[in-house]
Amino acid sequence: MLAVIAGEGALPACVLEGRPGAVAVHLAGVAATTGDAPVIPARLERLGALFADLTAAGVTQVCLAGAMRRPALDPQAFDPVMEALAPRLMAAMAGGDDALLRLIVAEFETRGFAVLGAHQVAPALLAGPGRLAGPEPTPADLADADRAGAILSALDALDVGQAAVVAGGLCLGIETQQGTDFLLETVARTDPALRRGARGVLVKRPKAGQDLRVDLPAIGPATVAGAARAGLAGIVLAADRVLLLDRARTLAAADAADLFVVAR
Amino acid sequence: MLAVIAGEGALPACVLEGRPGAVAVHLAGVAATTGDAPVIPARLERLGALFADLTAAGVTQVCLAGAMRRPALDPQAFDPVMEALAPRLMAAMAGGDDALLRLIVAEFETRGFAVLGAHQVAPALLAGPGRLAGPEPTPADLADADRAGAILSALDALDVGQAAVVAGGLCLGIETQQGTDFLLETVARTDPALRRGARGVLVKRPKAGQDLRVDLPAIGPATVAGAARAGLAGIVLAADRVLLLDRARTLAAADAADLFVVAR
Repeated sequence: MLAVIAGEGALPACVLEGRPGAVAVHLAGVAATTGDAPVIPARLERLGALFADLTAAGVTQVCLAGAMRRPALDPQAFDPVMEALAPRLMAAMAGGDDALLRLIVAEFETRGFAVLGAHQVAPALLAGPGRLAGPEPTPADLADADRAGAILSALDALDVGQAAVVAGGLCLGIETQQGTDFLLETVARTDPALRRGARGVLVKRPKAGQDLRVDLPAIGPATVAGAARAGLAGIVLAADRVLLLDRARTLAAADAADLFVVAR
Repeated sequence: MLAVIAGEGALPACVLEGRPGAVAVHLAGVAATTGDAPVIPARLERLGALFADLTAAGVTQVCLAGAMRRPALDPQAFDPVMEALAPRLMAAMAGGDDALLRLIVAEFETRGFAVLGAHQVAPALLAGPGRLAGPEPTPADLADADRAGAILSALDALDVGQAAVVAGGLCLGIETQQGTDFLLETVARTDPALRRGARGVLVKRPKAGQDLRVDLPAIGPATVAGAARAGLAGIVLAADRVLLLDRARTLAAADAADLFVVAR
């Protein structure tokens, strides 16, 4: 049986939709929406208890789905499993989020659970290659996408973010801890004179070497709405490595906003 | 004689203050403040005319001082010098700002002008090494500064920005085209829960390999005010490579806000 460890956003429900019989794990402090699936409540401080509950429920596979912001952990509430994990946890928390998630994935695997990515449970959610919505990008748009991609590549090893915006060769934003929607709001607040007429492109992709089972980038209707408010010409995704949530609505919104969505 | 090509901000006036007899060049479209110095008005489209005016005024040295956002150039108004420069100008505009400024510096040098940096005209403006204001940074603050420095190093070759903010190991912002004040506003708008109690550090420094005669980073009272509004613990500068404008007021504001300013 599959358990979806639910983060924020639309992804957990999308993953669960295609897997009747799966259960959803709701972590305390995470605002998760998981549709009709049965819920197993849990606290990260009591990871040992979660392992026991999952085993008791017959769960053999887990999938981490949705944005997981770092929880405020209460060490007073740690169970023995978390206490044993604490030194490595502290070390992981000193870096970006990837180290932390990798540690948690490894811990599930040590306990005999298979850890699947959302793209493995629901491969139809991946954005395949090609132009998916809107007009053809211009050569200038593609040059902007290339520059945004080069900026993200430079940051790959540093676990910073998965998205950047470039307009007319000028970088208008790099995703940091606040996420893509915040990045797009920031671009929307930028003095339009800075762009000198260029519209700009959002590039979104996983970090090179990233474990795609955790924190796979995703776009959805909110991303398209944010890109439109930011005045962008379009969105370029890494083909087969970015999730397209609520596909029909997302692409219809892009068409309506005359905003291209291209995966390459 | 020295001419200060005035960009935005407090720097042009600071540079001119110590150089009686120098003239200020005001470019159309640039909101420059230059105190009492005589003004030579100019348009970037008529660079040849500016060269002639400078020579007629007895100018042999020029200093580019202050933030120069890319002007909207009107090719219809180009004089022969700019027309000859146009192809290289277009190529430079496709990248970041550095390429453009390097081109302009080279053009001044070709015409026989010596190009000086603000730090060469007014070396007292540089932030020397040591703790300049506020409390001693904690080891956690210095770890945040190191991580911000690593992020900026990764971007060195890409001509993106000169500043980054890290709090508790999490990157909360990287300076892009909008500049440092905008970066600090963006950090101030960030959901405080994301920091999990860490205050955070702003690191500001030139790019490795940057020609320090153009676009030398600077902080001033507005930077300190922005850092305080963003709730940061302090500011870390590259020693002897960042300008400290309005030094007394800047450092007093940092002391008053209990915000460290360290150059290292």
